[in-house]
Amino acid sequence: MTEAPTTAPEPYGSADPAAGTAGEVLAGYLAAQAGAFLRALPQAVGEAGSRPGALPASAAAAADLLRAVRRVGGALHTFEPAFEPAWAAEARTELRWLLDLLGQEPAYQRRADRLLAALDSLSDTAGDGPGILAGHTGAPKARALLERQLTLARTRAHSGLLQELRSARLHALADRMTLLAGEVPLEPRAARQSAEVLRPQAATALAALAEGTERLPLARLAAPYGGDGLHRLATVPPARGPVLDAEAALTAADAPWHRLRVLVKRARYALEVCGAPLDGLDGLDRVLHRHQEAADAALTAAAAARTPRITPATAYVLGVVHADQRLEVEAARYAFGHQWPNLQHHGWHAWATA
Amino acid sequence: MTEAPTTAPEPYGSADPAAGTAGEVLAGYLAAQAGAFLRALPQAVGEAGSRPGALPASAAAAADLLRAVRRVGGALHTFEPAFEPAWAAEARTELRWLLDLLGQEPAYQRRADRLLAALDSLSDTAGDGPGILAGHTGAPKARALLERQLTLARTRAHSGLLQELRSARLHALADRMTLLAGEVPLEPRAARQSAEVLRPQAATALAALAEGTERLPLARLAAPYGGDGLHRLATVPPARGPVLDAEAALTAADAPWHRLRVLVKRARYALEVCGAPLDGLDGLDRVLHRHQEAADAALTAAAAARTPRITPATAYVLGVVHADQRLEVEAARYAFGHQWPNLQHHGWHAWATA
Repeated sequence: MTEAPTTAPEPYGSADPAAGTAGEVLAGYLAAQAGAFLRALPQAVGEAGSRPGALPASAAAAADLLRAVRRVGGALHTFEPAFEPAWAAEARTELRWLLDLLGQEPAYQRRADRLLAALDSLSDTAGDGPGILAGHTGAPKARALLERQLTLARTRAHSGLLQELRSARLHALADRMTLLAGEVPLEPRAARQSAEVLRPQAATALAALAEGTERLPLARLAAPYGGDGLHRLATVPPARGPVLDAEAALTAADAPWHRLRVLVKRARYALEVCGAPLDGLDGLDRVLHRHQEAADAALTAAAAARTPRITPATAYVLGVVHADQRLEVEAARYAFGHQWPNLQHHGWHAWATA
Repeated sequence: MTEAPTTAPEPYGSADPAAGTAGEVLAGYLAAQAGAFLRALPQAVGEAGSRPGALPASAAAAADLLRAVRRVGGALHTFEPAFEPAWAAEARTELRWLLDLLGQEPAYQRRADRLLAALDSLSDTAGDGPGILAGHTGAPKARALLERQLTLARTRAHSGLLQELRSARLHALADRMTLLAGEVPLEPRAARQSAEVLRPQAATALAALAEGTERLPLARLAAPYGGDGLHRLATVPPARGPVLDAEAALTAADAPWHRLRVLVKRARYALEVCGAPLDGLDGLDRVLHRHQEAADAALTAAAAARTPRITPATAYVLGVVHADQRLEVEAARYAFGHQWPNLQHHGWHAWATA
């Protein structure tokens, strides 16, 4: 299974998604995703039994698995009224569990890649130019510390995954997906035309996304270097009383952005189901992915700096790395602030408001 | 004396600067600057005898003094062929000495203001939103350390200034400026028309500025968040062999930018002498001033982090502050990259190439 193309293969209204009933469209989409899930599962599970840091083949299988899980979960959420409620709620809970479980190890791997690459770039002594940590004595120490801590976290995630992959819970979920590949528990309204049932739900997903962006300071973000990722983090009024913990403050300030990423994914999968044009949404998804990864990496650097008995030089380097990742957060917000207004002119906006 | 207006009061060719001889124009300009120098000197010197951290009145006098010193020095450099060579070379040496001497104390003051404001903003717990150091235990310690070190540096600069202000050297320079207010030692060619003598020299100053910008990666800087201030610092090929000292590498990488600031000032003062339009050059001057201040502040934060026996928390905060100031450096470069190409359409470019 390959990643979804940036535009739907067929414009809405000319092909299957618009022609059939809502049930036919949903069953077709979910069967395809469940099939992808079932094809990827053995390889992802089999390889997961090997050493941490999976081979490319199994990493690709795990990515395929995650992709299918996200799409099935997204469809069950957005088109909820079309499904048998108890079944859909249970399925979504199980899919979220697997998503968390599968996502941890690659996330730690990506975080290590990101932080070590940032550190190497900041302490680079040649090439396109030296970084601000060039030759700093703390750089190798900080690198070793980050690598050690992230390897440990990844190993733990791997062990946790191994246990769960042999669990009855995963087998039950696999059975559930096998069922989904053949038959989807639908409500009677799913027998109506897809345009009548699916389109309003997809429009709701898009409206939720638009609403999510309204809480963000997009006007301020239009100018670069506003310090949004380092200073002035909160996009919502701070909680009553002074914020005394930078990490909690950061988490609260970043939350609307992380939430937005979920809304973008949901909107994207909803349009995919409907065969509507997706242009731009995958770009937003990438930008918000980068935002999340940089925000998580910044927290990891900050946490590493609290390791007992590190030298001041190590801590100093981690401070630079932390700020550098927050700069990435700011850059991602700036990119979002420029991409989002342009999207309003795109096909899906017209489609949703038609 | 007020700061020079953004555009010259009279367009070139309609008023004195173009009508008289080069000698008349230069003598008029230098007499006005020497007069400003002599008016500001007693107040700047008198107040400098008081405690460090001068009063606003004396700070204004010192600023007036610096402004006149820069303009006289700039005119002597740019229009060098019009002056008696030995006299001009000696005068420039003495003006540079005074510029360094007077500039130190206010520079330390500005650096303290900048770094403490950055730290306060980064550790802000409320208002427009918390910073990434909100509630961090190292923030008050790092603040106290920076304040202590910069107060010490400022006090030393103040003591040095006090000694020199009573020196025979300053009295000789004051005498020189008194002479300049009445009579300027000119070469015979200064008797020619100003357009014939001054304009080619001003055009040379502008060409030097244009040449200085050609060594910078302006195309790369056109996109924000390129990491130019933190990663990839060098705009010139690094010295042979690996760069092992971040500070030396930084200094080398920032040097073309600091040099550019000198070239902007020279071009600005040269156009001022000629009564040509200045539009945009004062904006470039401000941007490059911000660049220099942030680069110097970053070095100060890095140096403070090398203080023996500081805690890891303090060092960590200084690392964040260092990176934050380098982000300012990057933001200034981005701003320059956007302002410079626009300047080509401005009046002075047409004037210089007419």
